[in-house]
Amino acid sequence: MPIPAPNLYPAFNIVRLSHVELAVTDLARSRAFYVDTLGLQVTDETSDTIWLRAMEERGHHCIILKKSGKAEARDLGFKVFDEDHLDKAAAFFKDKGLPVDWVERAYQGRTFITRDPHGVPLEFYAKMDRLEPIHQKYALYKGVKPLRIDHFNCFSPDVDASVAFYNELGFRVTEYTEDEETGRLWAAWTHRKGGVHDIAFTNGLGPRLHHTAFWVPTPLNIIDLLDLMATTGWVGNIERGPGRHGISNAFFLYVLDPDGHRIEIYCSDYQTVDPDLEAIRWDLKDPQRQTLWGAPAPRSWFEHGSRFHGAEPRQSDLAASPIIAP
Amino acid sequence: MPIPAPNLYPAFNIVRLSHVELAVTDLARSRAFYVDTLGLQVTDETSDTIWLRAMEERGHHCIILKKSGKAEARDLGFKVFDEDHLDKAAAFFKDKGLPVDWVERAYQGRTFITRDPHGVPLEFYAKMDRLEPIHQKYALYKGVKPLRIDHFNCFSPDVDASVAFYNELGFRVTEYTEDEETGRLWAAWTHRKGGVHDIAFTNGLGPRLHHTAFWVPTPLNIIDLLDLMATTGWVGNIERGPGRHGISNAFFLYVLDPDGHRIEIYCSDYQTVDPDLEAIRWDLKDPQRQTLWGAPAPRSWFEHGSRFHGAEPRQSDLAASPIIAP
Amino acid sequence: MPIPAPNLYPAFNIVRLSHVELAVTDLARSRAFYVDTLGLQVTDETSDTIWLRAMEERGHHCIILKKSGKAEARDLGFKVFDEDHLDKAAAFFKDKGLPVDWVERAYQGRTFITRDPHGVPLEFYAKMDRLEPIHQKYALYKGVKPLRIDHFNCFSPDVDASVAFYNELGFRVTEYTEDEETGRLWAAWTHRKGGVHDIAFTNGLGPRLHHTAFWVPTPLNIIDLLDLMATTGWVGNIERGPGRHGISNAFFLYVLDPDGHRIEIYCSDYQTVDPDLEAIRWDLKDPQRQTLWGAPAPRSWFEHGSRFHGAEPRQSDLAASPIIAP
Amino acid sequence: MPIPAPNLYPAFNIVRLSHVELAVTDLARSRAFYVDTLGLQVTDETSDTIWLRAMEERGHHCIILKKSGKAEARDLGFKVFDEDHLDKAAAFFKDKGLPVDWVERAYQGRTFITRDPHGVPLEFYAKMDRLEPIHQKYALYKGVKPLRIDHFNCFSPDVDASVAFYNELGFRVTEYTEDEETGRLWAAWTHRKGGVHDIAFTNGLGPRLHHTAFWVPTPLNIIDLLDLMATTGWVGNIERGPGRHGISNAFFLYVLDPDGHRIEIYCSDYQTVDPDLEAIRWDLKDPQRQTLWGAPAPRSWFEHGSRFHGAEPRQSDLAASPIIAP
Repeated sequence: MPIPAPNLYPAFNIVRLSHVELAVTDLARSRAFYVDTLGLQVTDETSDTIWLRAMEERGHHCIILKKSGKAEARDLGFKVFDEDHLDKAAAFFKDKGLPVDWVERAYQGRTFITRDPHGVPLEFYAKMDRLEPIHQKYALYKGVKPLRIDHFNCFSPDVDASVAFYNELGFRVTEYTEDEETGRLWAAWTHRKGGVHDIAFTNGLGPRLHHTAFWVPTPLNIIDLLDLMATTGWVGNIERGPGRHGISNAFFLYVLDPDGHRIEIYCSDYQTVDPDLEAIRWDLKDPQRQTLWGAPAPRSWFEHGSRFHGAEPRQSDLAASPIIAP
Repeated sequence: MPIPAPNLYPAFNIVRLSHVELAVTDLARSRAFYVDTLGLQVTDETSDTIWLRAMEERGHHCIILKKSGKAEARDLGFKVFDEDHLDKAAAFFKDKGLPVDWVERAYQGRTFITRDPHGVPLEFYAKMDRLEPIHQKYALYKGVKPLRIDHFNCFSPDVDASVAFYNELGFRVTEYTEDEETGRLWAAWTHRKGGVHDIAFTNGLGPRLHHTAFWVPTPLNIIDLLDLMATTGWVGNIERGPGRHGISNAFFLYVLDPDGHRIEIYCSDYQTVDPDLEAIRWDLKDPQRQTLWGAPAPRSWFEHGSRFHGAEPRQSDLAASPIIAP
Repeated sequence: MPIPAPNLYPAFNIVRLSHVELAVTDLARSRAFYVDTLGLQVTDETSDTIWLRAMEERGHHCIILKKSGKAEARDLGFKVFDEDHLDKAAAFFKDKGLPVDWVERAYQGRTFITRDPHGVPLEFYAKMDRLEPIHQKYALYKGVKPLRIDHFNCFSPDVDASVAFYNELGFRVTEYTEDEETGRLWAAWTHRKGGVHDIAFTNGLGPRLHHTAFWVPTPLNIIDLLDLMATTGWVGNIERGPGRHGISNAFFLYVLDPDGHRIEIYCSDYQTVDPDLEAIRWDLKDPQRQTLWGAPAPRSWFEHGSRFHGAEPRQSDLAASPIIAP
Repeated sequence: MPIPAPNLYPAFNIVRLSHVELAVTDLARSRAFYVDTLGLQVTDETSDTIWLRAMEERGHHCIILKKSGKAEARDLGFKVFDEDHLDKAAAFFKDKGLPVDWVERAYQGRTFITRDPHGVPLEFYAKMDRLEPIHQKYALYKGVKPLRIDHFNCFSPDVDASVAFYNELGFRVTEYTEDEETGRLWAAWTHRKGGVHDIAFTNGLGPRLHHTAFWVPTPLNIIDLLDLMATTGWVGNIERGPGRHGISNAFFLYVLDPDGHRIEIYCSDYQTVDPDLEAIRWDLKDPQRQTLWGAPAPRSWFEHGSRFHGAEPRQSDLAASPIIAP
């Protein structure tokens, strides 16, 4: 079995994925997508930035839309347990010879940025401004009624290496796809917060961000979004779904924002808090791994992703095949 | 506008579509599909025949599965208002020079069979054995929890002619697709019972039965069926969906029985009882007509249908194009 | 069996219930209820009148809110098949010695008003202005996403007499409650359009309007409305539900508008187009008749109703008992 | 503010609630309830014991039904992080002067039992037999389709003391009800696994088990269960609901097993993994705290609970009032 034993005693405690900044070329158009269509809530906005949260979140932001001349994904944000763990995290990355820069972030406490070995830009903090609960303000629910950010999914040029690194950070593999012939990992789903994943990796031209996912409780939320997008000029932004993945059991929909940043709307994963949870292995040759049921994924879904700021992607040494990819 | 004015005063009163007999080659396998998977209820069975009803139906059967060496669709059954209307119906078909044969049908009263001008086999009756209600016996609900048979959809070699004929029978067009260049009808949905359709016609190699549809209340019924089929060996029988049609607003799923007879599971049509209901026109060039959202239909969906007993299909004189068909 | 045989050949053809005018004391407050909370669509409004339709309706109005010093229910509106049937209807009521007055109604063609033998004000017309479909304008869906007006429910001082009269009009009984001791009808549900009811009658101080119902496809619509009302100042207007009636199998919610007019939101009835449909008999002593499951109805639900304009209610000669009533 | 600061660095790590043993007087009848009606899966059974798990669980059991002459609740089971934490847990209870007995438990590794200061019997272990995943075996889903055990709710004679003790164990308060006049806690919800609660405490005659809850994804699962119970002889076992609690935002249903053990079916809580999550305070006088919407709770719901084996309940020194209780 190619996946490492889970590291149950990591050097520091990452609580969960937290947020991502997306550089967008038309802020008004992106607002129409994320706010008016998906239903995310604006927590602040300026002439060049919009901060958003989902309905059950109390942290200030899960998505930051930043006006830019070039569409790209920026730091993937993670919340650590406390300030002490934040310092331990900084020390960990320094020890690895990875860059650690302390930065100012609006609405966040002490924050540093770094990169993983493949160049994925990462951001760590312990404290973010807390807001009043709105999960019972039902008049605010709109669009797909997104409850919380759920996970990131990244293309990696070397999934074995990505999993080894994030495993050291304490991310536990819940499900994975193995290429029997090479014994290599094709894809892996890893978590911190007790769901199927906080971050997943898929073999391909990477590092690139494949998608950012939001959790909703029922497939009907997703069907409501499809009806809305199909009749408000967004039908071309529906890329794939609805369908169910074998891996993660997710009932999914993939949509593209105006710059092509991919958003997954997702329901029905499962609880993974047991430290002795056995990772589920899928064979690369099993078509239901990827699509338990539903139409085949379009080629764009296998090939397109958002580039990360300052990271040059390289091709995986495993030949990518749309038939078998993610 | 190519559709005829609705005939509000037909020679006799057809209440609704009622049932269809499907010739199947492996009765046990078909039972596994219709009973164990879709969840239809067996009202009687013999060594070569199974009668089925849906959960809210009180008539004895909506589907008859008949063991046969050859898979085919047989008479499309319709219920007329009373015995007097049944005689008027027989007279109407005789006047048209169409064959009228009175036949014995188990669990039905006086019944005659005939054919429409394209050879579609039809069956008319006024009385069928009535059964106890089971719609509140919730322990019996299984599979997709089908509530009632909803409609037939047929390939027609000449939709204008089909619509003209069924219009004379009192079927009212609710929605239709027009080929602007030729001014011809490409497809039409016609009803008697107050929903979007009892029978629809689509341009193509016909006459053939494209599908028989069952009504369910919510998309979650359909998702439950997909999950069940995908994990019980029926994944290959899922042909298309889920998705939403622009026409009829149907949230749909198309599955194929073991002999390739196509079944649609369907929700969210609308009430059409107003005699002055305006038919909705769709342009053949509008892709959302066919798919408001969802993956493109596979080629099989445009090309495959069940042959009718004793009817030789002929190609439509309108060139069928998978891009624009049904 | 106390219910009359269905009159399958009435003197004229009523297509369906159509609309009702509700006199309200605070138009702005009523607008907040019907439009902002329930999600009905405004088709026209003036300083003292608001016309509303539901999402799949193409007729101009199903509810008319009229500013008034006194809250009351006015004419129950019904659509007949055509102008000829409208004249036959007028003749029918005249022959009964009931008042027939031809009136002007905005957005309607020729219209007359009359009363049933207990004084319920009725309105008949054949033509109403038709509007563009909006059932696929998903951006407009709000609140409970009401699809169509479904039925009226009236208190009657003599249900046997009410059923006898409406039976003569062609309304067919689908379900009824019989008081075994007296052999009298306690309540009855009667339809024209092919659902469980267009109008129902319940023993009590009558004539009064118990409620007007709207149809929605799934219980989740109703739960969304409950969440919205409970968190936007309307919690006190939730009277009863959610629950399921044995009779009609309705999944129901009853809410009160600002003047106490009762609105039912309703899903999962069944198709009743068969002329030989057997009415379902319920015993007055069967508690599941009224509540298949759910909390007991509050006393207000048994006792409160809207008075009809110009009709003095009288007590039923059957003693009403909250324990067993509707 | 009466609640203690969360103890983020407890002496040992409890992962989640795990299971409970219920003593039942008629094993066959209890099987009909938990297996045939709720849809829990049997993982083993003997003449006097049935082990059950929910659909997404991989641990061997979440409910153990044990034939007994007397109905009662036995040890509340919790899973700790590893064997080392199990020993630390044992030491912790010993230090408190609480009984610690190492016991044999079928399908579990090293296990000890103890009691909290009020006498609630507790059981701790690190390892339980792991079973194959069944969450994608959709043919097995039945009844309410329970996905996992979610929480325990206990009557406590002194909620302040209970919260102080469980806080020391690392349980974090997510929501609580305060009695403004006394400044005392009326009720509190505390978690380990990242949801609203693993265990909650309510002022009353205690210690007693108020209920054990299972998580389902949508309200429709609960409505399906209501329809099933209402038509299969279990209508009398439906105690309260459906409704929504203000506290926890739970869409809930409470049903009673054949011995009166209360089971809650529950959906729509929220993620609580942030160590700086602010507990939500509710005023004892706020009626929506308990019922955001829905019928008032019956008296039995406030008064009835399951006695714990070997624990004599005592009345809380706060006067219980059905109007304001849980």
